[in-house]
Amino acid sequence: MNSSEFQVRALLESRVDASQAKDVDRLMSHYSSDIVYYDVVPPMRYTGHEQVRRNFVRWFGEYNGPLSLETHDLTVMTGSDAAFAHMLHLDSGTRKNGLRSAMWVRSTVCLRRSGSSWLITHEHISLPINPETLQAWFPTDR
Amino acid sequence: MNSSEFQVRALLESRVDASQAKDVDRLMSHYSSDIVYYDVVPPMRYTGHEQVRRNFVRWFGEYNGPLSLETHDLTVMTGSDAAFAHMLHLDSGTRKNGLRSAMWVRSTVCLRRSGSSWLITHEHISLPINPETLQAWFPTDR
Repeated sequence: MNSSEFQVRALLESRVDASQAKDVDRLMSHYSSDIVYYDVVPPMRYTGHEQVRRNFVRWFGEYNGPLSLETHDLTVMTGSDAAFAHMLHLDSGTRKNGLRSAMWVRSTVCLRRSGSSWLITHEHISLPINPETLQAWFPTDR
Repeated sequence: MNSSEFQVRALLESRVDASQAKDVDRLMSHYSSDIVYYDVVPPMRYTGHEQVRRNFVRWFGEYNGPLSLETHDLTVMTGSDAAFAHMLHLDSGTRKNGLRSAMWVRSTVCLRRSGSSWLITHEHISLPINPETLQAWFPTDR
């Protein structure tokens, strides 16, 4: 594993740890100021720190107590200046809004080198949609 | 624009042209054999050429006649060996399965250098989901 891949994997672990701790400052420290974020929930995209931060705070607020993010099927590809990763997350906890307490989501993270470290410039989180019913599709297992 | 960015932008244009022409061979020529694809429709992911090709053929078959993909808000980031791009697509045509004839989707494309050219190793296409109804969310405009 080269040093870029080591750095990106450490950042991804910190991203999950900060999410589980609902530590929005630590989480936001991994995002560039020009972040373009496609989330599970509307609208089509969130752009910039303020919108993305507000959306993380909303997400954290949906749980009574802790949330858990388990990472599966992680692939990391790093180059000299650009990197990306994709994974499935099992997102669980006691939610307030009626969404299931455990659900699988698809997660893509794209990063740019920033000096000696890396920043996330794009993230894409989603669920599949059943084309017949237009309802979110939840697998029983990934 | 450096030569990598020029190559990646040309590949993205060919990807759209091949989709619009329903030319599955040309389209598949842009994907690596270890492609991991997260699509709007289930399951969670498609892996490898055979699954991804079959899913493209299904997609093409949903339209009576031509389909159109308009690209908006494209961002491309290229490094020496890894690159990524994100964009919104307005996907339109006369569909057979009840989905709207024009819809906006979010599209993320991740690429790896392969010799003197590039291949897509990961792609992620989705719509947001309304958290109250768990229904797909369609914006009137992006």
